[in-house]
Amino acid sequence: MNVRLTLRLLGALLIFLAGTLLFPVPFSLYFGDGATAALLLSALLSAVAGATLFFLFRTENELSLREGFAVVSFSWILFSAFGALPFLFSGTISNPIDAVFETMSGFTTTGATILTRIEGLPESILLWRALTHWLGGMGIIVLSLAILPMLGVGGMQLFKAEVPGPTADRLKPRIQDTAKLLWGVYVLLTMVETLLLMLGGMNFYEALCHAFATLATGGFSTRNASVGAFDSSYIDWIITLFMFLAGVNFSLHYHALRGRWRDFWKNEEFRCYLGITLAATLLLVIANQGRIYGSLIDNLRYSAFQATSILTTTGFGTADYEQWPVIAQYLLAFLMFIGGCAGSTGGGIKVLRILLLFKHAHVQIFRLIHPRAVRLVKLGNVPVNRDVMQSILGFFALYIGIFVIASFIMAGTGLDLVSAGMSVAATLGNIGPGLGSVGPVDNYAHIAPFGKAVLILCMLLGRLEIFTVLVLLFPTFWRK
Amino acid sequence: MNVRLTLRLLGALLIFLAGTLLFPVPFSLYFGDGATAALLLSALLSAVAGATLFFLFRTENELSLREGFAVVSFSWILFSAFGALPFLFSGTISNPIDAVFETMSGFTTTGATILTRIEGLPESILLWRALTHWLGGMGIIVLSLAILPMLGVGGMQLFKAEVPGPTADRLKPRIQDTAKLLWGVYVLLTMVETLLLMLGGMNFYEALCHAFATLATGGFSTRNASVGAFDSSYIDWIITLFMFLAGVNFSLHYHALRGRWRDFWKNEEFRCYLGITLAATLLLVIANQGRIYGSLIDNLRYSAFQATSILTTTGFGTADYEQWPVIAQYLLAFLMFIGGCAGSTGGGIKVLRILLLFKHAHVQIFRLIHPRAVRLVKLGNVPVNRDVMQSILGFFALYIGIFVIASFIMAGTGLDLVSAGMSVAATLGNIGPGLGSVGPVDNYAHIAPFGKAVLILCMLLGRLEIFTVLVLLFPTFWRK
Ligand SMILES: [K+]
Ligand SMILES: [K+]
Repeated sequence: MNVRLTLRLLGALLIFLAGTLLFPVPFSLYFGDGATAALLLSALLSAVAGATLFFLFRTENELSLREGFAVVSFSWILFSAFGALPFLFSGTISNPIDAVFETMSGFTTTGATILTRIEGLPESILLWRALTHWLGGMGIIVLSLAILPMLGVGGMQLFKAEVPGPTADRLKPRIQDTAKLLWGVYVLLTMVETLLLMLGGMNFYEALCHAFATLATGGFSTRNASVGAFDSSYIDWIITLFMFLAGVNFSLHYHALRGRWRDFWKNEEFRCYLGITLAATLLLVIANQGRIYGSLIDNLRYSAFQATSILTTTGFGTADYEQWPVIAQYLLAFLMFIGGCAGSTGGGIKVLRILLLFKHAHVQIFRLIHPRAVRLVKLGNVPVNRDVMQSILGFFALYIGIFVIASFIMAGTGLDLVSAGMSVAATLGNIGPGLGSVGPVDNYAHIAPFGKAVLILCMLLGRLEIFTVLVLLFPTFWRK
Repeated sequence: MNVRLTLRLLGALLIFLAGTLLFPVPFSLYFGDGATAALLLSALLSAVAGATLFFLFRTENELSLREGFAVVSFSWILFSAFGALPFLFSGTISNPIDAVFETMSGFTTTGATILTRIEGLPESILLWRALTHWLGGMGIIVLSLAILPMLGVGGMQLFKAEVPGPTADRLKPRIQDTAKLLWGVYVLLTMVETLLLMLGGMNFYEALCHAFATLATGGFSTRNASVGAFDSSYIDWIITLFMFLAGVNFSLHYHALRGRWRDFWKNEEFRCYLGITLAATLLLVIANQGRIYGSLIDNLRYSAFQATSILTTTGFGTADYEQWPVIAQYLLAFLMFIGGCAGSTGGGIKVLRILLLFKHAHVQIFRLIHPRAVRLVKLGNVPVNRDVMQSILGFFALYIGIFVIASFIMAGTGLDLVSAGMSVAATLGNIGPGLGSVGPVDNYAHIAPFGKAVLILCMLLGRLEIFTVLVLLFPTFWRK
């Protein structure tokens, strides 16, 4: 483990963070919201800390596996610490643990908030809050499609060959090239959504904030009532569409933009994801029709929005789904565990892994009936390596294990059974709103500080595919 | 698939069932409870049905894999159908689906009841109810230690070499010899517990019923308030001890009786099971002390009883744990999924599989840090075959998958979130009482008929290690 190189890279990333902290400054000046100084001071502190690390630890070594893991985990942690400064300096959030919760929730694209009232806060601070989502989403795309496949985490090895960019085995050039190509797609989709939302009557500032939060499947809104506040069928459907797109593997978008549209349909995970979205919408429509919504058009609008919002782990709301029938709530809780496609900005276990788990179970049963037959799990027409399958099964077991243990701890902080489980499901899966006392019209302010710390860890674990964080806890990781 | 042989064997088993239906007859005559005719008629019908199958389908073929699966699944189904007759004929239960629920709950050692009042029912019928547990437990011991290892189900292959009896590869002689040895242990433990309970003041009839229900980790009691009705510290501790013993792999008991006491401690699963029991008791004591129980002695008695009762999936009750702190309830819900040791009469996922899942996750993380190192999952000092590990991972994924889907269906029948999830956890894990509206002081009477059918299937799936039942749903299973 090369600590110098790790610290140097983290320094460079902090300097980058300082730059992004300047982005909301013009908005602050335009709105005269009084948060300019807070943003500038935060940027200055980040830049100084980053430059110190960067220039103090010079090294010529190449990036290897272990530094990869360390940089990834610590960059999310450092970003959440320095990214929390504008909230504290502007007086928006007074408590440091709350500020770190909100920022980690931003960078992990979770969207769980401790703010009880959002409207009336400084516009530039809310923009920064939405920007943390968007930056986190950028990080996740490159992490899941360029870094994790190399590190061999949780089955992401599957993407080694599929992702655009050179297939060089050295970590650095590949990461850079892949990142550039995919970020182009990400920026383009953000711009298109911003424009479309403005056509629906949103101003530029709100359109931008919501586009940031959509593409990152983040879910922070500028309104207390989330997307529901705009009360526009057009806006709901645009956001439904872009949430769906944000939940798709970004290399498919890249291929599509280069004219290979058919790749969508050829991709088994995409077909499965589309199927789940449509099936979940249909089930919600059936559960709600006549009971919650009289008009089928309204029902479809709200049901499709919520199914997509939860499945993609965005967490935007247009309805208080805790008023829906229990079976609808159960379905939403179920979707929280599935999540988006691998290589998207969505969280959860991921459609790919769920799909392969089902295929694995199917093959297991087949082998019981035909003990001498050889049958492998296949994705598309390609057999899935047994090591990859073992990673995925291990990931699933760990995900459930962490869910169980963390829910248990949350129950110890005084939450009821449903809230304890759902607060963990909603943070570990990077969704945001859950059920019970952390439902769609509630927030996380009431949770005890220790409980907030547990949920912060859940957000980090979930976002970084668990293994990336857990390896750091092993003593052998730190040995030379 | 040899249908003739399957039907012939099922016929033989039905004749055996007819014999067991006569067991409560002397009790019926002694108590004059009026259920003698109901028992005799049920025995007659079972014998006639069994003899018809047995003599109609003569065949000289040897038992093979597929008939093994079919006989196992259909024997539980047929036993639940014919075993329900005494409830119906005696007028104890008027509705056939309720009667089948109660009987399946008995034979699968689940102990979930649809009876709202137990005291006052004919003694011989309650004895039959307890006997279904005991017979189910006998079936499970031979199933898990002699049949499933041969069929290769859910990691039980691990036991191929460990189990007493000849190591012949042909299914029939091995099953018979293993069964005889292990049933000896089972009968002995039942007799000892019956005696010890009688020393605590129970009459022979109640002692026998509770011993049947303990050794099978079943949980049916002869009292409305379960074991709590006896209000005896001695009885509580005796039952705690025997529930614990019933949750241990019966081949360890067999070795111990032959003087190899140290095998308990050498067995990694046993150490883990003991550790979980002690840790869960300690956590419950901490959660309850001062809040629920003032005296530490009382606290220990009730906490140890409940921890053991739920972990071993017995489901006896001495306290209404829904009045305990939420964290205590959460812990109990968590224990429901773990269950007893493999090769015991306990249900759930089994300690062995949970242990191997943790080891697998550990190895996965190790391999991320040391990609070139070779490290296998080991149990004791023996490496676990990768096929076995894949079975276990597949089992876990299926268990969770079935839990999720069945809970979803239960939510559709009108249960609240907690009751929907916990009714499935408590039946799939063969525990009996859950939380919510199926808690320790409630019962399953209020569940809709369709919901009861779903839970009947859950009991069967859980008890037969899922795969055994699922193979029957594959068309290729039925082909020549
Ligand atoms: K989110
Ligand atoms: K039970």
